[in-house]
Amino acid sequence: MERTITLAHGSGGRLTSDLVREVFVATFADSAGQAMDDAAVLPAGEGRVALTTDAFVVKPRFFPGGDIGKLSICGTVNDLAVAGARPVALTTAFIIEEGVGIDELITIAASMATCAREAGVRLVAGDTKVVERGSGDGVYITTAGYGLVADGLQLSPTTLRPGDVLLVSGDVGRHEAAILLARGQISLAAPIVSDCGLLVATARAVLKAGGDGVRCLRDATRGGLATVLCEWAESSGCGLLVEDARVPVTASVSAVSELLGLDPLYLANEGRLVTAVAPERADAVEAALRALDPSAARIGRVSDAARSRVLCETGVGGRRVLDKLAGGQLPRIC
Amino acid sequence: MERTITLAHGSGGRLTSDLVREVFVATFADSAGQAMDDAAVLPAGEGRVALTTDAFVVKPRFFPGGDIGKLSICGTVNDLAVAGARPVALTTAFIIEEGVGIDELITIAASMATCAREAGVRLVAGDTKVVERGSGDGVYITTAGYGLVADGLQLSPTTLRPGDVLLVSGDVGRHEAAILLARGQISLAAPIVSDCGLLVATARAVLKAGGDGVRCLRDATRGGLATVLCEWAESSGCGLLVEDARVPVTASVSAVSELLGLDPLYLANEGRLVTAVAPERADAVEAALRALDPSAARIGRVSDAARSRVLCETGVGGRRVLDKLAGGQLPRIC
Repeated sequence: MERTITLAHGSGGRLTSDLVREVFVATFADSAGQAMDDAAVLPAGEGRVALTTDAFVVKPRFFPGGDIGKLSICGTVNDLAVAGARPVALTTAFIIEEGVGIDELITIAASMATCAREAGVRLVAGDTKVVERGSGDGVYITTAGYGLVADGLQLSPTTLRPGDVLLVSGDVGRHEAAILLARGQISLAAPIVSDCGLLVATARAVLKAGGDGVRCLRDATRGGLATVLCEWAESSGCGLLVEDARVPVTASVSAVSELLGLDPLYLANEGRLVTAVAPERADAVEAALRALDPSAARIGRVSDAARSRVLCETGVGGRRVLDKLAGGQLPRIC
Repeated sequence: MERTITLAHGSGGRLTSDLVREVFVATFADSAGQAMDDAAVLPAGEGRVALTTDAFVVKPRFFPGGDIGKLSICGTVNDLAVAGARPVALTTAFIIEEGVGIDELITIAASMATCAREAGVRLVAGDTKVVERGSGDGVYITTAGYGLVADGLQLSPTTLRPGDVLLVSGDVGRHEAAILLARGQISLAAPIVSDCGLLVATARAVLKAGGDGVRCLRDATRGGLATVLCEWAESSGCGLLVEDARVPVTASVSAVSELLGLDPLYLANEGRLVTAVAPERADAVEAALRALDPSAARIGRVSDAARSRVLCETGVGGRRVLDKLAGGQLPRIC
């Protein structure tokens, strides 16, 4: 008989500690290097401290290219990476619905451990809560990240200036399209695999190739590439020009988007970095990005027209304004 | 008409940023000192780094003595405090069920801001996810904490030795009893007010009065005082002797416990510190604790008998073994 989570697993007593020991301590042992405790104490490191958090409620929990466990590590590690930080440690908190299989939890924990190891981060502290059937939906995971930023590194969209070049680390829209397909709402001959992945090496490569010409980095998650660009236009007061034809999108993501009337620029990604760099460093950064992913591309530039707005140049000489996503996007994509 | 949360508030687009701005940035402004961003960068501090996390799913969200917002700050700040850390910053992640009132969210955020200010911590980064009606239960909050531990401070139950004195910072069981009553499952003439509160000053007072005679600190949350003592007995290999009559319990918590056949030693607290100190420092620590809360008490000692077990001496010369809570406790007490 399959063993499942009961409310008693959330009591804080013996069943909770047995569960933590079986599922998390055993699985995270390599990455944690110590028992998962209420609080972990680490040696201090060099540089400033970066802190970040994300909650993950993706549905379904398993999808082509990843699962909620991998996503919960990538998402938080990537937030640290695009802040220019070296990711050091993560905490993890689980909200589990009564009835979830313990084997599934072990699979998710194993996926987290693998991804944490690849990212070079330790999983140092955790918490587990159980809610009644119907008060959750399987498993929700919240991770928080701690990283270290080298002194002197300043990344901010407020430093954008006209002439800066905009680049993206790979084709966009695959995560959200993969989730759509995984929900069985539409079907396609070839499956779409989520871009869910780590951006640690990508961020490092950009900073190495771009040096102090790198203005800012961001991962384009919910709201997609367009939303990141809108936020940058807003905080910098500059205009951003994007050339539609240069934004890399795979044929299957294009097909799904056309079928459903979606715009790939607004589709969520989980492993795509956007950067703005000084023009004299753009070639070097583009080469560094393409060495990691051949679909990386230069997609536009910062202009001194269209202040605080993002303009998208369509193929035939037309232009449209990109605005922040106004709602109605697929719920629970991450 | 009351404004409520819709799935579109979780899309990552304009509605998400409006919500974050209205509810969190506006409310947390004092405590954050900056916009809530994906990642925050702070100056480095002195000492080792403490990291911790907790998820909060308490039901009901508002109860005598607190609410889920206050609880989500106290819980994580207290985990830092009992690790011997000075709490510095917290991250917060919300999982909100479609249909929750925006005014209620603002009330919860205000409660968090007040408590964070009192604790001297900044709320530096956050995330908001929305799930469909029936896939959550109102609001779940996960906080993660970052603090700094003075070099040289070593607190661990592995340092317990026979003769050490056990103390608790106040009467036990009030949080869980308050939640029970707030659910309306039983009624009592006088309401019970949760002990939900900060342990920053308490931990500081113990460390100041006890110096290097302080072996370890813990907050007795889920599983209660008994579970903390069981874990200490297990990790130290020592026996712990508790005198039942010395454990402070209010008359109303006693009454509820008797009525429902519960043991106050296993009831959850949310603002109670347990400590073990060397015998020569016990008087000073007891005085320091009683200055903060007159109900604080010396409740027992570490012995060289009954290895790895907790024995409770009942009034009439009898003894019972305290074991970790085996399950069946009230779900969602924190």
